[in-house]
Amino acid sequence: MQIPLDRDKPVPLARQIQAHLERLIAGRLLAPGVKLPATRELAQSLGVNRATVALAYEELVAAGWARAHVGQGTFVAGPPEGATVVVEPPAQPLNWAALLSRSARIVDNDAERARAAAPTGPRDGVISFAGGMPDSGLFPTDAFRRALNEVVREEGESLLQYYPVGGYPPLRRYLATYLLRFGLEARADDILIVNGSQQGFDLIARTLLDPGDSVAIEQPTYPRAMQVFRSFGASLLAVDRDAGGPRVEAFERLLERQAPKLFYCQPSAHNPTGLTIRRDVAMRLLAVAARHQVPVVEDGFDGSLFYGERPPAPLKALDRDGVVVYIGTFSKVLFPGLRLGWLVAPPPLAERLRAAKQLADLHTSALLQAAVHRFCERRLLDRHVARIAGEYRRRRDALLAALKRRMPEGVTWTEPEGGFSLLVTLPAGLDARALLPRALERGVAYTPGAAFWVDGSGERTLRLSFSSLQAGKIEEGVRRLGELIREARKRPSAHPVERVAAPLV
Amino acid sequence: MQIPLDRDKPVPLARQIQAHLERLIAGRLLAPGVKLPATRELAQSLGVNRATVALAYEELVAAGWARAHVGQGTFVAGPPEGATVVVEPPAQPLNWAALLSRSARIVDNDAERARAAAPTGPRDGVISFAGGMPDSGLFPTDAFRRALNEVVREEGESLLQYYPVGGYPPLRRYLATYLLRFGLEARADDILIVNGSQQGFDLIARTLLDPGDSVAIEQPTYPRAMQVFRSFGASLLAVDRDAGGPRVEAFERLLERQAPKLFYCQPSAHNPTGLTIRRDVAMRLLAVAARHQVPVVEDGFDGSLFYGERPPAPLKALDRDGVVVYIGTFSKVLFPGLRLGWLVAPPPLAERLRAAKQLADLHTSALLQAAVHRFCERRLLDRHVARIAGEYRRRRDALLAALKRRMPEGVTWTEPEGGFSLLVTLPAGLDARALLPRALERGVAYTPGAAFWVDGSGERTLRLSFSSLQAGKIEEGVRRLGELIREARKRPSAHPVERVAAPLV
Repeated sequence: MQIPLDRDKPVPLARQIQAHLERLIAGRLLAPGVKLPATRELAQSLGVNRATVALAYEELVAAGWARAHVGQGTFVAGPPEGATVVVEPPAQPLNWAALLSRSARIVDNDAERARAAAPTGPRDGVISFAGGMPDSGLFPTDAFRRALNEVVREEGESLLQYYPVGGYPPLRRYLATYLLRFGLEARADDILIVNGSQQGFDLIARTLLDPGDSVAIEQPTYPRAMQVFRSFGASLLAVDRDAGGPRVEAFERLLERQAPKLFYCQPSAHNPTGLTIRRDVAMRLLAVAARHQVPVVEDGFDGSLFYGERPPAPLKALDRDGVVVYIGTFSKVLFPGLRLGWLVAPPPLAERLRAAKQLADLHTSALLQAAVHRFCERRLLDRHVARIAGEYRRRRDALLAALKRRMPEGVTWTEPEGGFSLLVTLPAGLDARALLPRALERGVAYTPGAAFWVDGSGERTLRLSFSSLQAGKIEEGVRRLGELIREARKRPSAHPVERVAAPLV
Repeated sequence: MQIPLDRDKPVPLARQIQAHLERLIAGRLLAPGVKLPATRELAQSLGVNRATVALAYEELVAAGWARAHVGQGTFVAGPPEGATVVVEPPAQPLNWAALLSRSARIVDNDAERARAAAPTGPRDGVISFAGGMPDSGLFPTDAFRRALNEVVREEGESLLQYYPVGGYPPLRRYLATYLLRFGLEARADDILIVNGSQQGFDLIARTLLDPGDSVAIEQPTYPRAMQVFRSFGASLLAVDRDAGGPRVEAFERLLERQAPKLFYCQPSAHNPTGLTIRRDVAMRLLAVAARHQVPVVEDGFDGSLFYGERPPAPLKALDRDGVVVYIGTFSKVLFPGLRLGWLVAPPPLAERLRAAKQLADLHTSALLQAAVHRFCERRLLDRHVARIAGEYRRRRDALLAALKRRMPEGVTWTEPEGGFSLLVTLPAGLDARALLPRALERGVAYTPGAAFWVDGSGERTLRLSFSSLQAGKIEEGVRRLGELIREARKRPSAHPVERVAAPLV
């Protein structure tokens, strides 16, 4: 530790050391529980007598700033009650708000609105259909640990060094073969490993979007995708969906009048509805995009997590004209926390995405890529996915059955063939966001649907995620929700139904 | 695997399967060595007789596309010689070049110039002073493997789930205490974990820069930092350095005439020179930046890897006005391949950087953060750094001694107190880039210095990295380089000295 000491000052050195440490503790720069350097060590690095440091520590302990444990050392306790330490404010502080880029200001605005609309965190006794992540109780943690251990042992040195930007070649080859299962043809060279699909959005946006551009986007859709495109200065043009997928006629009318730089969609296991595009709709959508020269960004949900008979073909598998950029991820089928995903793009674009990735963060950890490859190569992913797909299907079935049993008339919902969630529509006059505080009081949480709409409409909708809840909880949660809705329809709301005109996300 | 079959076609199904697989193999969608699905599996997924698939495989083997290994299955061999497969070109291919953002076009240009100037990859017998990475032969791989294993065992489920954007709290607390060693005061909450310093540049750029802005930057400097700022549409304003650091008078004159959005520098262990800013220069630099309200982006090299008496204070430790954003990294002291770094920013900026990080890729792998924390907490980092600092110091000493012994008169170089490299200046009339092919012929490689200059000047300079070479190799490499320079001064170059007018990086 470095402590500036002034030997010309009349203040004794021990007192100077003590005052410095008090300031660090008061400012939470030294947190409670942190061990202070050994007296000998600190004395040496400051060039003072060891007794001087010992005296400073004794004073800190006596005043309650620190605690001494015999034989272990001196530990920070925190500021004693009533302690005051004068911290000098900066003389010429920067006005950071004035220095922000347009992008940062857009993100600021979005974050503020999201905070205002966010459901509160998990509470005791609340059954939460919010979230939408895989169930960590189903993680194959131990098998993955062994794969990780093996690859560090065998290839640690090269995996821990700088690595080529494209990714770990065996993983890219594995993916090329894996994707053929779904009819998606990609050469290993055209696959770019990224930090989850979120980085995929980012790289695509920075490669295709300039401020003032527009992006066509199906509605409802994934809020974070909207945020990324908006943060690059793009405006969003909504294309409504129905049960078969995005409305192709509306898409085509839009393209006749405007020139979006790309169209973003989730063709299978769509978030929030869980629906999958019909094949004929997919074919027409691609034809329209090719005719109008608009790239289609496909946010893919893994085909292995499909609850129907046979996984749907990704758009990219049907793409004869090379208009589709496919975003894949291990976050749903394996672990979200690894931040591992991939992009499949037509070669001229793939090259630019690689260059953007290199500037963004050089490359994704090769160690994690190699561990996932080892795991997949042993067919452990196949075995794992077969197990979790069965479990998620049971949870979906439990949710659909409970909704059928418990929901009052006038409430409708989507019937997902994939994914982790479905979308409920409340009877006219009810607002899902306004209802949320009462839902929390009753012990049930969900995600209000407005966040999934470009224009913040969708007030009557709410998303229910079934992936993290066991069947019994699902039944009870839907019972609480059903009662709440019944009651809300009967008596006027205590919370007035808010209408938010501004876009929410 | 999905193979589209047309049962109404006169072509037999086996032949259709065979043709599909031939097309995949010819297009490198199925790479040599890949195992084809078991006949039973494929037959089931296509809804055909198993004998049909077996017949297709036999034909592929007979024609040389695949090889059968009894008891193991059928494996892709590659296209047989003379094989032709007709691949239909896209009917309406997109003109991707026309769709690119300004940012992507800037990156394109930079990449093209970098390719033209890049030294070729490692060659047999060549002693390479290019690169500039830590020596993977010194990696504490096994100790890290154990740390990784432990954290997955103990906290795997939560580390593999989505994680809060700021990072793994114990690692942030560790860093807060660690940075106090160098006098840098940061609360754990103000530390943001990122994917290496490269992502730090990116997040800072997107938070502060708009197209048309300018960035002040010391010269010479790290090429990838320049590329990032340029990719956000900023123009670069060079501030020349001398042995004491950036020239503060030049910086101040620049600020009187122009309004850059930030100043980027590497105050200690500067790349390429290895020099460290003088304390009085640092104080004056900070005062000028505060007076003109210009944020200073400090690309920090870890103080533990300092070869002098006592590590220099980072600028951030001297920053009384809160103008400095500090970028730290584990890439130099530990493993570059983990892609782990951190930002310390004044709170109003820290909040925006967190929001930018969340949009960029949600968060950095908590698993890797926890493993590094475990490693550090056991004081293994301290022990490791003490060992490698000694070794790198010996290599630096060997390089300086060899230069003194072997370089002809008129050649000068910097004397680094930290970092992995130093900068050599050749006598007037010599061009380091033009000389490189002859150096490679002689068995020695280096990085031509022009890449480190904003305007592509610095033709007479070259960077020598000593971090990855053992002392014996260093001596021999410098001997070869000395001979080359002596010879180049005597006889006119076979390769005319090129002058590149356009900025190189």
